[in-house]
Amino acid sequence: MLTPGTVVIGQSGGPTAVINQSLIGVVKACLQRPETFTRVLGAVHGVNGIMKGEFVDFTLEDPANLEVVAGTPSSALKSVRRKASAEDCTAIFARFKELDVRAFFYIGGNDTAETTHIIDEMAKKAGYDLACFHVPKTIDNDLRVTDHCPGFGSAAKFVAQAFMGDNLDNRSLSGIKVNIVMGRNAGWLTAASALARILPDDGPHLIYCPEADFSLEAFCRDAEAVYRRLGRCVIAVSEGIHGPGGAEIIDSKEVDSHGNKQLSGSGALGDFLADTLKAHLAKVMPDKKHRVRADTFGYLQRCFPGVVSESDAREARMAGAAAVVAATSGVKSGSIAFRRHDAPYRIETFVTPLATVAKETKPMARDLLNAAGNDIDSAKLLPYLTPLVGPLPPVGRLRGISG
Amino acid sequence: MLTPGTVVIGQSGGPTAVINQSLIGVVKACLQRPETFTRVLGAVHGVNGIMKGEFVDFTLEDPANLEVVAGTPSSALKSVRRKASAEDCTAIFARFKELDVRAFFYIGGNDTAETTHIIDEMAKKAGYDLACFHVPKTIDNDLRVTDHCPGFGSAAKFVAQAFMGDNLDNRSLSGIKVNIVMGRNAGWLTAASALARILPDDGPHLIYCPEADFSLEAFCRDAEAVYRRLGRCVIAVSEGIHGPGGAEIIDSKEVDSHGNKQLSGSGALGDFLADTLKAHLAKVMPDKKHRVRADTFGYLQRCFPGVVSESDAREARMAGAAAVVAATSGVKSGSIAFRRHDAPYRIETFVTPLATVAKETKPMARDLLNAAGNDIDSAKLLPYLTPLVGPLPPVGRLRGISG
Repeated sequence: MLTPGTVVIGQSGGPTAVINQSLIGVVKACLQRPETFTRVLGAVHGVNGIMKGEFVDFTLEDPANLEVVAGTPSSALKSVRRKASAEDCTAIFARFKELDVRAFFYIGGNDTAETTHIIDEMAKKAGYDLACFHVPKTIDNDLRVTDHCPGFGSAAKFVAQAFMGDNLDNRSLSGIKVNIVMGRNAGWLTAASALARILPDDGPHLIYCPEADFSLEAFCRDAEAVYRRLGRCVIAVSEGIHGPGGAEIIDSKEVDSHGNKQLSGSGALGDFLADTLKAHLAKVMPDKKHRVRADTFGYLQRCFPGVVSESDAREARMAGAAAVVAATSGVKSGSIAFRRHDAPYRIETFVTPLATVAKETKPMARDLLNAAGNDIDSAKLLPYLTPLVGPLPPVGRLRGISG
Repeated sequence: MLTPGTVVIGQSGGPTAVINQSLIGVVKACLQRPETFTRVLGAVHGVNGIMKGEFVDFTLEDPANLEVVAGTPSSALKSVRRKASAEDCTAIFARFKELDVRAFFYIGGNDTAETTHIIDEMAKKAGYDLACFHVPKTIDNDLRVTDHCPGFGSAAKFVAQAFMGDNLDNRSLSGIKVNIVMGRNAGWLTAASALARILPDDGPHLIYCPEADFSLEAFCRDAEAVYRRLGRCVIAVSEGIHGPGGAEIIDSKEVDSHGNKQLSGSGALGDFLADTLKAHLAKVMPDKKHRVRADTFGYLQRCFPGVVSESDAREARMAGAAAVVAATSGVKSGSIAFRRHDAPYRIETFVTPLATVAKETKPMARDLLNAAGNDIDSAKLLPYLTPLVGPLPPVGRLRGISG
């Protein structure tokens, strides 16, 4: 059984539109069990807050406001990108002992799971009685074990709606449009652009995910073929695309403390691809001026207020509550994962060992993409994606107009 | 009185989220008056469709589908960027005579008003009986005479929500974030980022519009000051910023047939400002690593499905219907404009001569910005902006956390 005492909750890594649903899921489940969770504390900026002693006391928060916070995108406790070192863990344990912390819930992605795992291992080694849970979130949808990740559905909804609008824009003024979508190693979010295809010939007409090796030559050839056929072309490109053996398309500059390269917050890849396409078209179709543009969706896609998937919000809340239920049921540590049931779609939660989620991520299976590597396999992927995103805004065309 | 005959409707210029509301506003008002408008035609790709003879016959369209089209962003008739030359007008008149066109409604911005104006003048010279109306749209909100422009409110809502999300993101992971907002000559859309300020110290903390001369030095100094005070900074920058006398910040490449430079569809300005800030901070705060990122909102902001201002949609529809009412009331030509009444907010439409709207645009008055040119004057601008955008998604913070 869980030793009664203080519980500490933290958020870590990039924010999502529903990460606060998970936070409030944990918080409310803890507040309902005051005999077990004698104090409910939130660490500000994740492990940094634990080390510095910066906490929010949730018993002092207004319950009605907690619901507003749950519906607010991004990390209400503020976030951090820090892999806890052995030294960090010593400091964290000192604080946990001082506060009599007996349960720790850390909401985040694979890096956050790794930190949770390290703390769990250290606690075991030190013989310190601590329940240690990772609650998943990531717009990248690249955590192992789970069917999908809280935060992905809402980001995918943003991407789908963005491509719906951009397809309409491109249809209206024609030309070629390249959109760069987030996703460091996994193409899930880029693949979700396919949900924007509502009517015949709707874009995106080409989709490039990191799971298929990227070739600039094939990219130009593919885009030219669509452009010649439709007079326009909308292209989804993952920020994580690379050539064979991981060869970079352009040089990127910064690396964070987990060794992740900076891919977002710069328009460089999109501008490079647009320039390459312009040069290609000037060569193969020299008799015409070509309109080629690129947008980089950037940080907008990960926590846009008002563009939230209802199932994503509900499941993020469930994941938080499930972690507390697991901890009070005698499970000592783990990460919450989703198992999917279809027809009708529903999920159930289960606990998977922290080691199975920590550190490594899971890309899409290569066979979820088409053989040419310039599109998804719609028959396989759309049934997976659709319930995670939910209904999209209705769009229509005049009947008397072609294309 | 309006001579009974065919009516032609077209859309021109960049699309908006509500330009089809105006289209369907015109179409339904015409379909209700079959004795006056014997045929109701839509020109595909604006004047191009007239010259090529590519039309949609609205009497053959399904009325229920017209409502779906009205709610669909971007130009359902497809768009064009073309200033009608004297030669073009000869071709247009030949077509109008062939089809017995007696009314022409052209939905677009100042360039579209100019084309409408040229056609109207040519018709008068040729003694051809034609009602010629411009129905306004532009996300830039820079048309003269009217209080505001259909399309602006929805784009402003997107910008406001984007900044709400980005402010939450920046608050969670800190650093400096620069966002480039559309608006060639007018800062209205960039100014609308101020609506994202809901709670104390919410960003954007700095706002740069083209109406105030931009200085890189002042920009770095301003950003550094906010960053030192809050540990973070969110900055809204118009794509149209320039130094004294219109000096360019970076070189842009392409120019369209109206002489407009390509500002969107590239991340170059944002990347340049972020790199400049990084270099500045490395010099003045060398003891710390600084996280500086830039996003360019690009085409997303002008026709994003699902992020539509209700008042904008309603007013865009009104503008379309008002043009038809004016035409059937004996007015020969003009542009539809809005007059605002406050407390409670409502608008009425009126007709202004085409020459008062064509060609030239209207920037914001300089005194709607603060003296330093790094923010808006909130007391003056927020009451103007708020009713155009309408309610924003609720966001909240934990009470026990500072900043």
